[in-house]
Amino acid sequence: MTFQKTFQTQTRGRGTYDITRNVEEVVARSGIETGICHLFIHHTSASLVLCENADPSVRSDLERFMSKLVPDGDPMFDHTIEGPDDMPAHIRSILSKMDLSFPVTGGRSALGTWQGIYLWEHRIHSHHRKVTVTILGD
Amino acid sequence: MTFQKTFQTQTRGRGTYDITRNVEEVVARSGIETGICHLFIHHTSASLVLCENADPSVRSDLERFMSKLVPDGDPMFDHTIEGPDDMPAHIRSILSKMDLSFPVTGGRSALGTWQGIYLWEHRIHSHHRKVTVTILGD
Amino acid sequence: MTFQKTFQTQTRGRGTYDITRNVEEVVARSGIETGICHLFIHHTSASLVLCENADPSVRSDLERFMSKLVPDGDPMFDHTIEGPDDMPAHIRSILSKMDLSFPVTGGRSALGTWQGIYLWEHRIHSHHRKVTVTILGD
Repeated sequence: MTFQKTFQTQTRGRGTYDITRNVEEVVARSGIETGICHLFIHHTSASLVLCENADPSVRSDLERFMSKLVPDGDPMFDHTIEGPDDMPAHIRSILSKMDLSFPVTGGRSALGTWQGIYLWEHRIHSHHRKVTVTILGD
Repeated sequence: MTFQKTFQTQTRGRGTYDITRNVEEVVARSGIETGICHLFIHHTSASLVLCENADPSVRSDLERFMSKLVPDGDPMFDHTIEGPDDMPAHIRSILSKMDLSFPVTGGRSALGTWQGIYLWEHRIHSHHRKVTVTILGD
Repeated sequence: MTFQKTFQTQTRGRGTYDITRNVEEVVARSGIETGICHLFIHHTSASLVLCENADPSVRSDLERFMSKLVPDGDPMFDHTIEGPDDMPAHIRSILSKMDLSFPVTGGRSALGTWQGIYLWEHRIHSHHRKVTVTILGD
């Protein structure tokens, strides 16, 4: 069995946005008991990650780390058409990935207790983002 | 067809642990001939990676690289509740990923000759870790 | 339904190679309407990434960034049997991943407008690389 659903969301600029509930609703609706849930973001400057979901400082530390690892406006970048966050957003997305998947067990998302699903916007400004959820299994 | 199996393991602190055999046993038991094998670790401070499986210095070099990239006790981190390796473990897991998948061909894991599957413990101390293997295919 | 196909390619040394068409041909041939397309590279010194497909400077900037992040010949590496790019190629592959997947919708690859699929060769010299495409769905 295969169940697929696309949703769209508007980010408010760089940062992590909890989409766990959006995804879990699709899992519940799919009627699939055992399998995997696959997520995909159709962009090259935003990504999908699993992150600790209890202490918000984990996500601010993660953001700070990434901003230091791939600095906006780094003079080594040639691709700066859309501004100093353009090329860093592409690299950040490649390092944190545009696909993500996890098991479905007993008709539910089998995430760990502390795992939340986050859409990570890497551009400074607000963007419209599209995510596809595909559930495969029995 | 879908086959799913969870296993648990106790790590002995930071480092990479070969789980290739555990996974290949599940693939063999599944009876699935063609498809994918999907692995997932239900934690935010350990990850799953494919790594060269012949020379142990690859994995010690990898560990050294990661320790330098995300230093324990870095003063930029606010999230230090569980110690200097707490936040680095979250970042290391996000950079190396909690999900991993590879093809199943002819009823077996279609890994490359030099690819081994490793559970990467990012915390300094021993932890109990849970991994789910899901095999999808025909 | 499951459809699997392996293809081989010869790289001309370090860099990114567009394999979007090779993959899309397999998707079309599979006859699968809704599901996921899973890609896997059977090596530990090359990887698979989604990257912006319009401006080539994105990929040269990405290469430059990675070369700085994981420098060839870094004296911290012990594993240097095959030269100064040996261990960096393993780390670069782990950071950029050997598996990649995206949705199939309406019998076609549901990639974003700017997403191209690239095989990323991390070794300096030419190598023979094997990629398996597995499509799962209905």
